[in-house]
Amino acid sequence: MTENPKSSGQRSATEKDVALLAGVSQSAVSRTFSAGKSVSKATRAKVIQAAESLGFSPNLMARALATRHSNIVALVIGHLENPFYAQVVKQLSEQLRKSGKHILLFTSDPDSHDNTSMDAVLSYKVDAVILAGVTATSKLAEKCKVSGVPVVQINRESKLAGVSSVRGENFKAGERIAQFLIAGGHTNFAFIGGTEASTVSSTRLDGFRKHLESHGFHNLMTAYGYNTNSGAATAARLLLGQDDRPDAIFCASDYMAFAVSDVARRELGLRVPEQVSIVGFDDVPEASSLSYDLTTYSQSAASLVEAALKQMDTLSINPSTRQRRIEVHGELIIRGSARLPIL
Amino acid sequence: MTENPKSSGQRSATEKDVALLAGVSQSAVSRTFSAGKSVSKATRAKVIQAAESLGFSPNLMARALATRHSNIVALVIGHLENPFYAQVVKQLSEQLRKSGKHILLFTSDPDSHDNTSMDAVLSYKVDAVILAGVTATSKLAEKCKVSGVPVVQINRESKLAGVSSVRGENFKAGERIAQFLIAGGHTNFAFIGGTEASTVSSTRLDGFRKHLESHGFHNLMTAYGYNTNSGAATAARLLLGQDDRPDAIFCASDYMAFAVSDVARRELGLRVPEQVSIVGFDDVPEASSLSYDLTTYSQSAASLVEAALKQMDTLSINPSTRQRRIEVHGELIIRGSARLPIL
Repeated sequence: MTENPKSSGQRSATEKDVALLAGVSQSAVSRTFSAGKSVSKATRAKVIQAAESLGFSPNLMARALATRHSNIVALVIGHLENPFYAQVVKQLSEQLRKSGKHILLFTSDPDSHDNTSMDAVLSYKVDAVILAGVTATSKLAEKCKVSGVPVVQINRESKLAGVSSVRGENFKAGERIAQFLIAGGHTNFAFIGGTEASTVSSTRLDGFRKHLESHGFHNLMTAYGYNTNSGAATAARLLLGQDDRPDAIFCASDYMAFAVSDVARRELGLRVPEQVSIVGFDDVPEASSLSYDLTTYSQSAASLVEAALKQMDTLSINPSTRQRRIEVHGELIIRGSARLPIL
Repeated sequence: MTENPKSSGQRSATEKDVALLAGVSQSAVSRTFSAGKSVSKATRAKVIQAAESLGFSPNLMARALATRHSNIVALVIGHLENPFYAQVVKQLSEQLRKSGKHILLFTSDPDSHDNTSMDAVLSYKVDAVILAGVTATSKLAEKCKVSGVPVVQINRESKLAGVSSVRGENFKAGERIAQFLIAGGHTNFAFIGGTEASTVSSTRLDGFRKHLESHGFHNLMTAYGYNTNSGAATAARLLLGQDDRPDAIFCASDYMAFAVSDVARRELGLRVPEQVSIVGFDDVPEASSLSYDLTTYSQSAASLVEAALKQMDTLSINPSTRQRRIEVHGELIIRGSARLPIL
């Protein structure tokens, strides 16, 4: 038995080595490096000193195998260029960190049919899978069900069994925006959605259309921006290039509304909101910039993430809990890009 | 021995179970789920069918323990709200995916002294640590050295032994921007940096100042925007509120330049570039938006990530390789936010 086990060779230091050097039990070492486990201050100090002098890192992957908890949550995310999703990543990382958990990140092109990235998720023993801006494949949902891994979607809905979702007030927002724009004296409405297949986008459209129709506005124009800058710009050119162009456009995301605003003002020379009002969705930080000053409907990334993690915990404790559809409260944020109600 | 081992209980299926059901060797199952290992098409098909019917996922964490390669790269990132870093995450995820690797994500507040997030990195057996927009602590660098884990920084420099860095042409960019602005007839220059402590920011300032001074411009104003929107706006108000306000501002990032442009145009009613020219750094997608139309110096996230991964591989193969400072080529991107050279 050597005094300093590290000097005896190239192998990495183990918990046993640390226990020996610190003069404590191996269980004390293990408890020191486990979140929420009790260990005296003096013991903790001895263990940490010994661990540092030996270059020991607790191997959380080894522990994951032993306890079946990796403290790792897989996040599959699409469209990181949209600041809303950058916020989701940041919020998720910060909120998970409080419980000692971390993110294993998978980026996905949400509009491609290549799901290799989503399948790769299951190659790792993760505690849960969170999807943001992408929809679970039936394969992923099935595999997670078999292995008891909770799946929660943020800002996407799913009809698959076992997949929970957290989203903003999509239908209500559509209605509220229609009400606001009608009160502003607009008469010619358009909607720019993400994709035709997106249920989130189509629920916003449904609320918007329902309120418009109940007030006698039946000729709503629709176009799709595919959640990209260039796609939204193309949709804006199409809508605003018509003789009978809209005087109010509701965009399914702030990110697309920025591109629409640029085309309207900088490319076509239209005055916003005098000639065309533009409303977004999300309330990302850039919406309040003086350049865009965007009227929008908020869905807070922090609140969505908080609700998703709560649902993840519920499902972890009781995997037989039914999936839930959770709606997070938002509100109309009135800024300068849309005409105000006429008094 | 059961025909379908899954039916015998609640335990997860193993490689052995899959081999039994597929009628192949356990090694064939293992090879099927290992990147780059050879296995016949027919065997692969049998293995995948058996694995799917048993709900088997190869446990890459268990494999990581056996092979000492986790195929996981830790990424510590600051300022995800800056689209440049969102691009770095996206590029890193996409480029790593090609070699079957994934990101374990740690977000960090780069201006806080709380390094718990950075320390947590070492609790996982990762293949490498990549830092973007944050600087390695000496503790992290030391621990990685002891355990032979490569550390590469993107867009930050470090004097620590063993820490490689990949960055844009900071000094050259500063000189080139000074040259361009002098040619445009500007006479009163300002620089808005990230933080005073940032070597990246101060190298850009050094190049800018050196070229200005060699052309007789000695009264360069400097301010710091702390890499935030509100910090940059405050710096802009300070500089542009003076009687002797600058007619050209070089900002150390596009993200800060957007806030400076908003303050100049929307808050102070200045015409850009007629009354004040604004130049950024990075060339993020938003720089080409019609709202900002920003003249900037490019540093491609794709190229930085590519160089970082190349250096990571070199260090993985030969851990005794000395750390390197790698500079990635960029260029001045001329748009509408700065006056053009007078012919």
